[in-house]
Order: sequence, then C-alpha cells, then structure tokens
Amino acid sequence: MSILVVGSLAFDDIETPFGRSDNTLGGSSTYIALSSSYFSDEIKLVGVVGNDFEDNHFRLLHNNGIDTKGLQVIDNGKTFRWSCRYHYDMNTRDTLDTQLNVFADFNPHIPLQYREAKYVCLGNIDPELQMKVLDQVSNPELVILDTMNFWIEGKPEELKKTLERVDIFILNDSEARLLSGDPNLVKSARIIRNMGPKTLIIKKGEHGALLFTDNGIFAAPAYPLESIYDPTGAGDTFAGGFLGHLARAGEINDTELRKAVLYGSAMASFCVEKFGTEKLANLELLEIEDRYQSFLDLSKIEE
Amino acid sequence: MSILVVGSLAFDDIETPFGRSDNTLGGSSTYIALSSSYFSDEIKLVGVVGNDFEDNHFRLLHNNGIDTKGLQVIDNGKTFRWSCRYHYDMNTRDTLDTQLNVFADFNPHIPLQYREAKYVCLGNIDPELQMKVLDQVSNPELVILDTMNFWIEGKPEELKKTLERVDIFILNDSEARLLSGDPNLVKSARIIRNMGPKTLIIKKGEHGALLFTDNGIFAAPAYPLESIYDPTGAGDTFAGGFLGHLARAGEINDTELRKAVLYGSAMASFCVEKFGTEKLANLELLEIEDRYQSFLDLSKIEE
Repeated sequence: MSILVVGSLAFDDIETPFGRSDNTLGGSSTYIALSSSYFSDEIKLVGVVGNDFEDNHFRLLHNNGIDTKGLQVIDNGKTFRWSCRYHYDMNTRDTLDTQLNVFADFNPHIPLQYREAKYVCLGNIDPELQMKVLDQVSNPELVILDTMNFWIEGKPEELKKTLERVDIFILNDSEARLLSGDPNLVKSARIIRNMGPKTLIIKKGEHGALLFTDNGIFAAPAYPLESIYDPTGAGDTFAGGFLGHLARAGEINDTELRKAVLYGSAMASFCVEKFGTEKLANLELLEIEDRYQSFLDLSKIEE
Repeated sequence: MSILVVGSLAFDDIETPFGRSDNTLGGSSTYIALSSSYFSDEIKLVGVVGNDFEDNHFRLLHNNGIDTKGLQVIDNGKTFRWSCRYHYDMNTRDTLDTQLNVFADFNPHIPLQYREAKYVCLGNIDPELQMKVLDQVSNPELVILDTMNFWIEGKPEELKKTLERVDIFILNDSEARLLSGDPNLVKSARIIRNMGPKTLIIKKGEHGALLFTDNGIFAAPAYPLESIYDPTGAGDTFAGGFLGHLARAGEINDTELRKAVLYGSAMASFCVEKFGTEKLANLELLEIEDRYQSFLDLSKIEE
C-alpha cells in the first residue's frame, strides 16, 4: 500500500543529559518515512531541502527504500535547522535556535506519480500547507494528520478546516487540552472528534497513548525503558509505525488500529534509545516484532 | 482469607473544583478496609479515634462487614482531622490544616484474635508503628505496605528497616523517585525491590500503575473517567482492592497479581467519582466486575 509523507526535513543539534548530537538528520517527515519504511515498500516523500542536503542523506533514505523524487532541492538555499536542549527529566526541552531557511517558502508540490497514493500522512507543518497537499491528491483511502501547539495557537481556524478532511488525527495530551479547551482527555477527545477525525490518538509520552474510535477507547502502555537518550522525533516515529502497520495490514478496523498503536509505540521506543534517527535507520524486522510482543506482554493477563 | 488493616482514621474537609465535603470519614485504613471489604468477609481494622467518632461511623464500617474491635476509642480525645484543597487539574492539592489529635499518640495494639491474620496491610503511617505491628503478628502469609513522601524524607532509615519485612510495597511515581534517588522508574524499581519487597507497585495516578515482579513488568492503564470529583483516598482504595482480590483468589502468582492491580484500579476509579468514601461505601459486586471488565477491554486486542 503506497504512502505519501509530507512534512519537514531538518538538520538538528540536540543536547540531552546523556550527550549531544550535531547536524543530525531530522524533521517530521524524515522520522515518519523511516519508521513506516519497515512496513511498506512504497514510501513517497515530499519536502524541501537545501544544497547542504548531501548524498549520504539521500543514501540514508534510499537505503530504507524511501522514494525521494518528491524532494525539492533548492540550489542556493540551506536546509531547515533546529537546535534544542532537553532538561534533566527529558520531558521538557528548550528550543535554542530555529532557522527555517528553505522551509520558510515550502510550497508542497505533489508529483503526478504520487497523487494516487492510498494513504496520505501530513506531518507537523502549517495547516494551510497540509490543506494544499489534500487539494492535490486524488481521494486517498486514509488521511492522517499530526500537528503541534504552535499551529493550534497560531492558526486554529485553518487547522480546524483541514481537520474536516482528516480520518486519523494524532496529537499529544497537552495539545489536545489546548485545542479542545477542556482539561479532561475523554471530553477533549469527544470535542476534537466532532471537528472531523473519526479516529483520534492522544499521545502521553512516557505514559503511553490513548486511541479513541466509535467502538471505544484503547489504552496503550509506554515501554518502560531504562535509558532514554533522545526523545526527538518519537512522536513522528510513532505516527510512521502506526501508519506503516495499517498499510501492511491493508484493512482498517478496531483490531488493526489497536495493533497499529502498539507498533507505533514500539517504533517510538526504539527511536529514543539513540540520538536522532541513528537507531531508527538501522532496525531489523525481527527486533520490531519482538518489541511489539513485549508491548503485548506488558498488559497481558493469562487466563 | 482474613486481612488485618492498620492505619489512620480521620475526618476530612475536602475542597475540589467541583464542590466541597466537610467532616467526611477518611483516613488510609478507612479507605483500605472499605475497598477490600467487597472481596473478603474477614477485614479486621486497627486504628485510633476520638469520642467524636459516632455510631453512624461505626455503622458505616459494620455495614460493610468490617470488624472494628481493634479500634481504640479515646474518650477525652478528638479524631485526626485533615483538610485540603485540590487545584484545577486535580493532580495537586494544598493541605490547609492537619490536627493529629488522638492519632499523635497512636500506639497500635493488635488484639489476640487478630494476630493470626493471613494478610497484613500497613497503611500509610509512621514506619516505626508499622514495624510495631509486624512485631505483634504471627508470621502472616503476606505483608503489604503503603507509605508517602513525608516518611521517605522524615524517617528513611526506619522505613528501609521495615521494608525488609515487606512482601508487597505500594507507592507512587514521585515517591519511588524520591526513595530510590533515580528519575527512571525501571531503575527505581530495581533499587527499591533490593530493599526487600519482591513485589513492587508504582502508582502513576491518572496514568495507571506499574507492577514489578521477578517475572517482569505489568502496565495497568487508568480508567479514562469523564469526571473526577475527589481524588482523596484513591491510593488507599487501590491498595484495598488489590489486597482484596489476592485474599479472594487465595493464591499469589503473576496472573493473580496482575488481576489484583486491575481490581485495585477499578476500586480507585469508583472512589474518585464521588466525595470521600461515599461511592466506595455503596457499591455492588456486579458494578465492580463490570468495571474490571472495562479495564480488561481497555488494553485488549482481539486476534
């Protein structure tokens, strides 16, 4: 099942209590694409980079079977750069610097051969750009959207308009409270699902994730990791694994949605074990299935 | 299976964003005893109250089948009083007033007919008093202990000495980090289990609970409630339901421990739906089994 991924690509400088990593390939679409690439051979990436995006970066994506024909390379421009420092508890971070560079003028153009993609994943970018993507694709079976507080606060109306065309919406608990205006997550979920997305996933970081559908609520635990080196990209990686499993399953029902949440959680748990995409870009399918099994075991009760 | 419960009894004045409740019967042992009373007919309560502890309070306990012969009633004294106000998010509260009264001189005396109790539950009181209780009982099959940051900071050595004689230790995530000195819960669990308790439960409030045993980790979700009126006693109620199920099951293994965590979570989810012990004192077994089933469904994946 073909997956179109649209979002940001960036070079990140990341500092955590465990060390630092500079010039590491990042960006929402990078994490989503890498994560979903373990489940599908048809990952089509659309984004914009500068001429500092080198062969080894393209190679990293190609080695994971990601189609980069949709990447716009701006010859005289620089790729989006972001740098941050995580606090001791790793749950909070300070953005030290943001240089949008070529990303400031990003105008997603979906190549003809991408427009028939069955699944469309809109990474965390301006909701107006997300809308532009939806205007170019020919009715996909599934549209997944991710966002962040920056857009919820900055472009709430544009976001809500875009949400009307979204099937599955992924955001974290504080963003859900912000968008709904209600501190209670169950009430928030009802309010947000009324904005359009029938399926809603609220990520709770180290506390797992909640899946809301017409058939009820699914609570996925977080994997109790002994060491978290870098949380960067965990949310996008979750989305990629979630989406990837659905594409692999080829059908969407409550059982597959619940499994997809665990696969997304499994991928995210790998992501944070090393800096940037280091771990994510070098996984074996067997590791993924093992981690998925550990997630099942975490909440299993033998009868 | 007989259960000895030792802890505090109090009258609470509670204020939450949803209203207030004054002079409501509370205290750790009250919540533990009421919660476990739905699973066992042999709940034996030891604590101290003043002559302001009236017939209707005894009646409430007796109506739930709780044996109160172990309650010391101090004729010229007043019962422990505590008043608090919860913040908007209900996750934090301010203690407005604490009057220990007769509880200040509490010296637990275990009646002869209680000393053979199979299970002993030490509610959140001074670890030195918890030790005094263990000195009076004749080798119980199971000792469960609850505590709080007040004792972890105030009497760490006494607490650690007592923990050496404990089978199951229940505390919350911030207390676990405080006691272990490690922010990571998996590492905290290993450090704390090395202090004595083979089985450890770390409560995470609205995020569920983690069970650590020699056989691995179990992650229990929290029930996504639409309205939480009063979190007071939820932790003690959890302990009571957990303990109660184990007593009812009559055997202790990983499966029963995992089920017990869900029954404890189910009881806690009822507790917070009304003020004080109001809901907890008036439940039907069927409701409890239904709520338990909803907890199972929360993390179930059909195959």
